[in-house]
Amino acid sequence: MEHLYDKLKQNYASGNYPYHMPGHKRNMTGYPMEEYYGIDITEIDGFDNLHKPQEILKAVMERAGKLFGAETYLLINGSTGGILSGISAAVEKGETLLMARNCHKAAYHAAYLRECRIEYCYPDFIESCGICGAVSLETIKKKLEENPDIKAVFLTSPTYDGVVSDVESIVREAHKRQIPVIVDEAHGAHFCLDERFPRSAVDCGADLVIHSIHKTLPAFTQTALLHVQGELIDRRKLRRFLQIYQTSSPSYILMAGIEQCISILEKEKTTLCDKFFEQNKMFEKNIKNLQYIKILSKESAPDQMYDFDTGKKVISVRGTGMTGQALYELLLEKYGLQMEMAGQDYVTAIMTIMDSAEGYLRLAEALLETEKDVLQSGTQERNVFPYAERKTPPERVYRISEAWEMEMDKVALEECEGEISAEFVHIYPPGIPLIVPGERFTKAIVEQLLRYRRQGLTIEGLHEDNKRAGIIREETYA
Amino acid sequence: MEHLYDKLKQNYASGNYPYHMPGHKRNMTGYPMEEYYGIDITEIDGFDNLHKPQEILKAVMERAGKLFGAETYLLINGSTGGILSGISAAVEKGETLLMARNCHKAAYHAAYLRECRIEYCYPDFIESCGICGAVSLETIKKKLEENPDIKAVFLTSPTYDGVVSDVESIVREAHKRQIPVIVDEAHGAHFCLDERFPRSAVDCGADLVIHSIHKTLPAFTQTALLHVQGELIDRRKLRRFLQIYQTSSPSYILMAGIEQCISILEKEKTTLCDKFFEQNKMFEKNIKNLQYIKILSKESAPDQMYDFDTGKKVISVRGTGMTGQALYELLLEKYGLQMEMAGQDYVTAIMTIMDSAEGYLRLAEALLETEKDVLQSGTQERNVFPYAERKTPPERVYRISEAWEMEMDKVALEECEGEISAEFVHIYPPGIPLIVPGERFTKAIVEQLLRYRRQGLTIEGLHEDNKRAGIIREETYA
Repeated sequence: MEHLYDKLKQNYASGNYPYHMPGHKRNMTGYPMEEYYGIDITEIDGFDNLHKPQEILKAVMERAGKLFGAETYLLINGSTGGILSGISAAVEKGETLLMARNCHKAAYHAAYLRECRIEYCYPDFIESCGICGAVSLETIKKKLEENPDIKAVFLTSPTYDGVVSDVESIVREAHKRQIPVIVDEAHGAHFCLDERFPRSAVDCGADLVIHSIHKTLPAFTQTALLHVQGELIDRRKLRRFLQIYQTSSPSYILMAGIEQCISILEKEKTTLCDKFFEQNKMFEKNIKNLQYIKILSKESAPDQMYDFDTGKKVISVRGTGMTGQALYELLLEKYGLQMEMAGQDYVTAIMTIMDSAEGYLRLAEALLETEKDVLQSGTQERNVFPYAERKTPPERVYRISEAWEMEMDKVALEECEGEISAEFVHIYPPGIPLIVPGERFTKAIVEQLLRYRRQGLTIEGLHEDNKRAGIIREETYA
Repeated sequence: MEHLYDKLKQNYASGNYPYHMPGHKRNMTGYPMEEYYGIDITEIDGFDNLHKPQEILKAVMERAGKLFGAETYLLINGSTGGILSGISAAVEKGETLLMARNCHKAAYHAAYLRECRIEYCYPDFIESCGICGAVSLETIKKKLEENPDIKAVFLTSPTYDGVVSDVESIVREAHKRQIPVIVDEAHGAHFCLDERFPRSAVDCGADLVIHSIHKTLPAFTQTALLHVQGELIDRRKLRRFLQIYQTSSPSYILMAGIEQCISILEKEKTTLCDKFFEQNKMFEKNIKNLQYIKILSKESAPDQMYDFDTGKKVISVRGTGMTGQALYELLLEKYGLQMEMAGQDYVTAIMTIMDSAEGYLRLAEALLETEKDVLQSGTQERNVFPYAERKTPPERVYRISEAWEMEMDKVALEECEGEISAEFVHIYPPGIPLIVPGERFTKAIVEQLLRYRRQGLTIEGLHEDNKRAGIIREETYA
């Protein structure tokens, strides 16, 4: 097996002189990251071409394909590049896309670029912690029956919070109509590795699957994989869009990282997964005495029957009077534990096959201590925040591709109920829009945004320090 | 000054535990690139957000802006991301774009995505080495006069071969009509550094300028900068498209590399440029006795009066009987000198402010020896290849955005004269299309492609091992 990193090191050591890009000329002695520059090359002889792979990069793609069970493309513009390419290849311009509302903004961007009419399906809502649940087969089936013009289905599974949809049944339903299913499995790249994880979307027969390998596997940020299988996706179109949305100067550092990730999994996936499940079991044992803080699981969310990603720890403080943001800050400042995100009344921790036993231990101890010190001290109000009703879709007045070409005005956030949004508005993470361009602000959405603003969460898509929202004046286009 | 790399290292050393992406958890002890993973993070507290910069990344952008003389955005999907975003922000959907024919494919892709009608302007042709020259003011002026519907001008300067256009006059002409000018100065990021280089497009007043800092400056592959100035470009749209075309999980390794590049230039640009010009002078002295091999410069190309980038060495073997490819291979195999590219009868070497004196010396010696050993040995035919006539534009039957949505058929390359291309066909590098989707194959183009194929150059956009071309059957859409 030839490792890309080794080959890059050999090239660095070869004494060959680079009369080519990159401009640093591997001549960075004495500067920080000196060695990184040493392996940072462009497409020179012997190192293949990402956009026309024939040698070592082709071999990496094939090895990845074997590991994940599909035809695989390497992504160096993140899952973003894969989502844009996948949707663009699956639908023609102007066609209808059935999309789960809780998708990453890249899916909305793809729909914008392809001028899609979007039919939304709404995931269930898990009341006990205020997060999106799965997209049900029934919802998808109903939409497909009602809209015979749907040309592709796009959904996110697992969600950013670890909720897994029944991809297999959804794929079966869509395939009855020859409709391809694209699954943003960005957060579930590890599902393929072991049967103790939920079944992967590739295994469930999805036509296109996007994996952010940097999210849960040992790979660099900004790297991902795109898997394709079956006959419903035109490979030529897919490659075309990968060339459009990804740089013609891909980083060999990032690609060496992808190769190394694949290599580690080829050799060690069983060992690493065994360790993961063992650590996880120990963690559950250690936190079993928590009374107020809940960690989402099949058992703790009895109102729903979902599959959950063991790697996602949604740590809920709902009903304790503490906010997600407060817990997030406490864990960081007092315990040096950096969470993935803070929601309204929960924080999310990501656990992967690369975690150490120490990591699990520190989190368990911090949570137990927090209950004792803070939550039982009586200084917190036992308040329960209302959630915005997410199942009532806001009225769509224009397609995104129409709305984004219109002129924008601004009004105070408090006054925008009834107005048409000119922007995507979301909190990031996880980047799921509360409202998209062309939709009408409801009272519930405005109230939710005001609440986020009071809680100090980072809202994207508002203006002037979150004071004003971008809107489209209906009368201008009437 | 706070350096991003230092801050990342501090975070690595802090002992804070990452319950977040990336999945490697900075826990890669014993694996290659261990330290790289240590500084590879996602947008955690204190590290800002590329798509909503407010802290350290904002400071980096401002420092870059100061150095280059504009408002600056960081690009981590290469210049590709900047070209797509710049064109998308400058024209509305379906509008007309005036574009130099010798543009990078990303510009064509942007025109496709925005459904532009493209008016092409053709650069001059430098007969003495068979490369594209500058785009003249007269050409641009004529096009602007003839096509009042043009909404933006896009050109590449310097070219991949180092030829600089008179951007200042072109900008002045376009601005008379309130038309923005976008300059792909990917290969000229160093122009801003020193007055001995040609004037930079930013300095010439171009509205949008894209710099591949990885090409000629000490930065990692895949990193670039986008500069904007003046009132003709809508900043909100520009930011929108940067969010669309660039991953929501940008690499902090790449961004630390951008910051370090800026930091090096801030401190050392004068020293580095002085060294560059001194080395360059010495090189010219060393090669002054070359008889057959010519290096393109103002003096050696007397048929044209262009400004040339001193950093580009177009080494021509035209008329010697040797091909560019043969020289390229000889330099690599016998001398360990890796050139940037091989053209029909030249090779290109890139010299930057990071080159060593040794690099210049080795190239000079190899060229002198090659003349002595190979070119004077009499074993080579003194053949001169004809060039395809590039100034006669192929007939455009469909817009790219139309042609790319049509069905493709395939015919043998030898037989495709008169057919409509379904593909971009180009050699890479430099990735400038000979024909684009919707244009009719001319005899000259077919002959040029057959010649490239015989020479073993890498042709992109042909099928079945370069045997067949993708075409659109006119009768299907008549």
